[in-house]
Amino acid sequence: MSQTITKEQLITARYGAENAPEQMIWNEQIAGLLSHRSVRHYSDRPLPQGCLETLVAAAQSASTSSNLQQWSVVAVTDPALKAEVRALAAGSNGQANGYIEQAPAILLWVADLSRSHAITEADGLTPEVHDYLDSFLMASVDAALAAQNATVAAESIGLGTVYIGATRNQAKALAALIDLPPRSYVVCGLVVGWPDDAYASDIRPRLPQPVVLHHNRYDAGNLDAHVQAYEATFHAFRERLGMKDKTWKQAVQSAATSMDYMDGREALRATLEARGFGFK
Amino acid sequence: MSQTITKEQLITARYGAENAPEQMIWNEQIAGLLSHRSVRHYSDRPLPQGCLETLVAAAQSASTSSNLQQWSVVAVTDPALKAEVRALAAGSNGQANGYIEQAPAILLWVADLSRSHAITEADGLTPEVHDYLDSFLMASVDAALAAQNATVAAESIGLGTVYIGATRNQAKALAALIDLPPRSYVVCGLVVGWPDDAYASDIRPRLPQPVVLHHNRYDAGNLDAHVQAYEATFHAFRERLGMKDKTWKQAVQSAATSMDYMDGREALRATLEARGFGFK
Repeated sequence: MSQTITKEQLITARYGAENAPEQMIWNEQIAGLLSHRSVRHYSDRPLPQGCLETLVAAAQSASTSSNLQQWSVVAVTDPALKAEVRALAAGSNGQANGYIEQAPAILLWVADLSRSHAITEADGLTPEVHDYLDSFLMASVDAALAAQNATVAAESIGLGTVYIGATRNQAKALAALIDLPPRSYVVCGLVVGWPDDAYASDIRPRLPQPVVLHHNRYDAGNLDAHVQAYEATFHAFRERLGMKDKTWKQAVQSAATSMDYMDGREALRATLEARGFGFK
Repeated sequence: MSQTITKEQLITARYGAENAPEQMIWNEQIAGLLSHRSVRHYSDRPLPQGCLETLVAAAQSASTSSNLQQWSVVAVTDPALKAEVRALAAGSNGQANGYIEQAPAILLWVADLSRSHAITEADGLTPEVHDYLDSFLMASVDAALAAQNATVAAESIGLGTVYIGATRNQAKALAALIDLPPRSYVVCGLVVGWPDDAYASDIRPRLPQPVVLHHNRYDAGNLDAHVQAYEATFHAFRERLGMKDKTWKQAVQSAATSMDYMDGREALRATLEARGFGFK
């Protein structure tokens, strides 16, 4: 699908005609990156041979802090287990994220200090660095870099993906379900499968570049004007897709104020401490 | 350079001949991802026109939790400022990461709750969700996904990159240097520039896939045997590059036990709390 979309169409889909960056370097890889959209309807076609190995090779090719490789990935493909993963990420009304069951796989990206911890303790040493927030962050960020490379690889094959942050809603139960060792947790899920062509999945517009790109020093000037401009693009996008009218500001405020939005993630700190992470 | 390397050479460079995954799907994008290597020597050639806009468009095309877009990037290109950034990330001996000064730019990837916070408080609402660990994590992970897409885009143009986690060593001073608002911090830096062809930069081997890839449930079985196999690949890599002989196990243990390795990052929690992040 993306092959037939032009450079101008891709840039306009991402920013709206008014806010398109003027100078863009272009090649096939960049076109692929800009074509990204989250896929929420999957066919029952299985993953191609070698798919998981390929996605993991791409993931392992991402940078990893000090080559410590403190992440793992659990590929859940067993239908019964996948249904249980979905139930834990289905939200408080039990209805959300049905595509976890529909797609052939969900990859659970794990921040994983367990290997480093075991390798260190095996020689009678004390891995005190793991007691600090920075170690938790380092493993989480490295898992994210790996996941994103897998996403790019999957899309290059023509597969669709969608990230699932709701895998943190019931982090304790999910870790138990997939037998995670202490000092590891699921940062996020990534559903992978073939898009169901009966459903469109659209490129979502983002904030104008000057909101996120700062030169030499951070400058929040003109935020209001840029958000105003974004609301117009955001509104046109939702209207075209027949979505309920909602401003981006309302979405931001709702996510910042509502414990419904957290949906269990308010317990993440307690769960992670119980799993052996430190936050010094 | 990567164009002339075959599929087999890339896979062998990443895993060693003994541990190469047997089935791999292949295309130009996947070859690009597997070609990644960190570049630590740069020429003085400036970035091409439109480079930053292109990298940021790729970054903004990555997924972002609930479309909240809670990240920013500060592109430091001013030589004097770049020298100050380098000084803050130069390690306790002041010698490390000199390529920050050599390359034309370092992109500082910022986890940024400041916009959501301001937009929420502007209407008299209380952004209590931001007081939780999950909000800190969400913004940090989204910044990482964005950074990785920028990395893939940069490499597709032929640019080299290297991530700098040492930007967290003096997180407080760095945030002040680039005028970061409260509730934002630099997750990591990404140096971007043209590789200096006088220096080789090599594909670093990673752990065998069965260590990081688990099917349906986590299985740490055979870790010792796989690490043993990896040590052979790791040793051959270091020997070929004339690096000091060191086992991977030694590197892991040193990073887990040494406060020298943390190099200031042990203060990250305190710095972030002072900057308004919550860890409930």
